[in-house]
Amino acid sequence: MAKSLVTGGAGFIGSHVARHCLDMGHEVVVLDDLSGGFEDHLPQGVTFVRGSITDNELVEQLFEEHKFEYVYHLAAYAAEGLSHFIRRFNYNNNLIGSVNLINQSVKHKVKCFVFTSSIAVYGPGQVPMIEDMVPQPEDPYGVAKYAVEMDLKAAHHMFGLDYVIFRPHNVYGENQNIGDKYRNVIGIFMNQIMQGKPMTIFGDGTQTRAFSYIDDVAPHIANSVNIPAAYNQVFNVGADRPYTVNELAQTVAKEFGVEPNIKHLEARKEVLHAYSDHSKAHEVFGGKEPVSLQEGISKMAAWAREVGARESQEFDNVEITEKLPEGWQVKIAAAKAKALA
Amino acid sequence: MAKSLVTGGAGFIGSHVARHCLDMGHEVVVLDDLSGGFEDHLPQGVTFVRGSITDNELVEQLFEEHKFEYVYHLAAYAAEGLSHFIRRFNYNNNLIGSVNLINQSVKHKVKCFVFTSSIAVYGPGQVPMIEDMVPQPEDPYGVAKYAVEMDLKAAHHMFGLDYVIFRPHNVYGENQNIGDKYRNVIGIFMNQIMQGKPMTIFGDGTQTRAFSYIDDVAPHIANSVNIPAAYNQVFNVGADRPYTVNELAQTVAKEFGVEPNIKHLEARKEVLHAYSDHSKAHEVFGGKEPVSLQEGISKMAAWAREVGARESQEFDNVEITEKLPEGWQVKIAAAKAKALA
Repeated sequence: MAKSLVTGGAGFIGSHVARHCLDMGHEVVVLDDLSGGFEDHLPQGVTFVRGSITDNELVEQLFEEHKFEYVYHLAAYAAEGLSHFIRRFNYNNNLIGSVNLINQSVKHKVKCFVFTSSIAVYGPGQVPMIEDMVPQPEDPYGVAKYAVEMDLKAAHHMFGLDYVIFRPHNVYGENQNIGDKYRNVIGIFMNQIMQGKPMTIFGDGTQTRAFSYIDDVAPHIANSVNIPAAYNQVFNVGADRPYTVNELAQTVAKEFGVEPNIKHLEARKEVLHAYSDHSKAHEVFGGKEPVSLQEGISKMAAWAREVGARESQEFDNVEITEKLPEGWQVKIAAAKAKALA
Repeated sequence: MAKSLVTGGAGFIGSHVARHCLDMGHEVVVLDDLSGGFEDHLPQGVTFVRGSITDNELVEQLFEEHKFEYVYHLAAYAAEGLSHFIRRFNYNNNLIGSVNLINQSVKHKVKCFVFTSSIAVYGPGQVPMIEDMVPQPEDPYGVAKYAVEMDLKAAHHMFGLDYVIFRPHNVYGENQNIGDKYRNVIGIFMNQIMQGKPMTIFGDGTQTRAFSYIDDVAPHIANSVNIPAAYNQVFNVGADRPYTVNELAQTVAKEFGVEPNIKHLEARKEVLHAYSDHSKAHEVFGGKEPVSLQEGISKMAAWAREVGARESQEFDNVEITEKLPEGWQVKIAAAKAKALA
C-alpha cells in the first residue's frame, strides 16, 4: 500500500486530496497545524499529526518513521493580498516549510513530490496564463510559491527528485475556511450573507477570476502520482470561464435567496483579470467539463448552511501596517503596541 | 550626515563598500555575524554590531535606534555550489534575513535599499547576461537572490521603497575570505599555493568566468544612492572579459612565482560559460576601463602574501550529503552522526 504524506490535510484543498488518496488505497498521514484547517475536515481513516511544516525536527521524525512514497504538499498560508504585510511570516511558512519537506524527500527518496503552487506566480498582464510563460510574480505570496517551484526543479536536476506542480485558480467548495477574511472571496460572501452583513468587494467589482470548483481540482492532484507523463511538469488546473466579482456576488446572493447587498471598499493592488489556459491538464489528465459556477456555488452553499457562519479570525502578527486594506486593520492597534513593546 | 547600514560589512565586498561610504561622508553602522568576515577588515570609523540579519529583534532595534537613510545589504552566505546541500540554511540566511531588513526599511522609510544580488539569478544558457532578461536561476542560492529581487520590486510597488540591485560577477580582491573553500576560486588558488598544495579545479577547467576586481564593483555600489537614474534599476557590474579557470590558474601561479600544479576534481553541476553585458552600468555610472586580470591578481596577491594562508573552514551543517562534490565531504561522517542523533 502506498504511504502518503498530505500536508495541510485538515485544510480546504488538502482535506479533499487526502480523501481521494484514501480512495486510491493510500495509507495517509496528515500533517496540519490547524492554523487554517479544522479537525472535523479530516477524512475518516487518516493518521493525523498536529504540527507545522516549519518544525524541521518534527518533519525529520515523520519521514524517518513513515518512509513516505508520495508527498502532497498543500500546507500554506494562502492569503495573497495580505502577504505584503506579513512578508517574514509568508516566506517562513510557505518557503522554509516547503524546503524542510524537499530536504527530507531527497534524503528519503520520495517517488513523487506533488506541490500546490498558485496562479499568483504568473504576475500581472499575462493572460491567458499558460504554463510555459516565465513567471514574474509581484507579491510575496507569489514569490514564495515560485521560489518553491524553482527549488523543486533544482532538486530534480541535482538529486532526481520527481515532482508535479499544480497552479490552481481561485478554488472554492466544501471545507473552505469561510471565516478567513483575507482570502477566498466566495467563502467570505457566504459568511457575510449568513451573518446578515453586506458582501464586501475591493474596488468596483469588475475584476475577473475563473472560480474553480474543488472537484475539478483535487482529484487531479491526488491522481497525478499515477501518471508518468505528469512527472516534472507544471499544470494549471481549474475552470475556464472568468466571471466578474460583481457577477459572483449576484450568484451567491441568489443561491441564498437574498437581495444582493454589496459594500464596495477601496480598491487594493491586485491583478485585474486572471484566467488560465488548461489545455495541458486536459491533455495529460483527461477529464470532464468543469462544474458550472452556479452548480458549484449551490453545492458549497448547501454545505455552508449546514456548518453555519464562522467568526472571522484576525491575523494578529501583521508586520507592516502601512497601506493595509480597509477591513483588515482591526488589530493594528494591537500590532503597534506589540511592535513598540 | 547620511547614516547608513552596511550588512556584511566585515566581509569581502561589504568592507570595501563600508570604506567608500565613509569616504563619501556617511556615518556607517556595520552589522556582521563574522561567519565569513573578520573584524580586522572593518574600516576605521564604522560602528560595528556583531549579529545576524536573521535576528529580527536585533534588526528591529538597530533601525529603531539609528534611523538609517540608506541600507547596503551585502550579508549573505555566498557559496552557490554548496547551496544545493544547505537549502534551509541558504533560504534562511539569504532570503529571510533580507526580508527582515526590507520590512524595517519600509517601516522606517529608508531612502534607498541597495542590494547585492548575483549573476546566479540568470541561470544557464543566457549569455551574455543582460539585465532585461527574465531570470531563471537553477540553484537555491540563485533562487534566494532572485526572490529578494522580486520582493524588493513588490515592496517598491506597494510601499514606494526605492532600491538599487547589483548583480556582480565573480568578484575578487583584498579582504576576500581565502579560507572558504566553497567559493571564490581565486582566493582558493592563492590559499592552496601558499600552503604548497595543488590548485583544485572542478572538471577540465574550460569553464569561463569574467573575474572582476573589487575596485570595479564596490565604488559603484556605494555611490549608487547618489544617482537618481539608478533607483529601482538592476545592474550587472564587473569585468567584461571571460577567462577559463585554467587560464586563471596559470595567472595566479605566475604571480606567486610557482609552477602551476593543478588537480582536476570531478566536474560539478555549474554553468559552463558566464559573462555579462555591462552597457547599462557604464551608461548610468560612467567609469573607467576595468582592471585587467593580471593587475588585479597582482594586487590581491600582495595582500594575500601579507596576511598569509588561512586554514579552510568546514561547513558543518550540511543538510544533504548525497552528491556533495569531492573535497567538500570531510564532515559527512559528523553530519550523518548528527542526523541520526
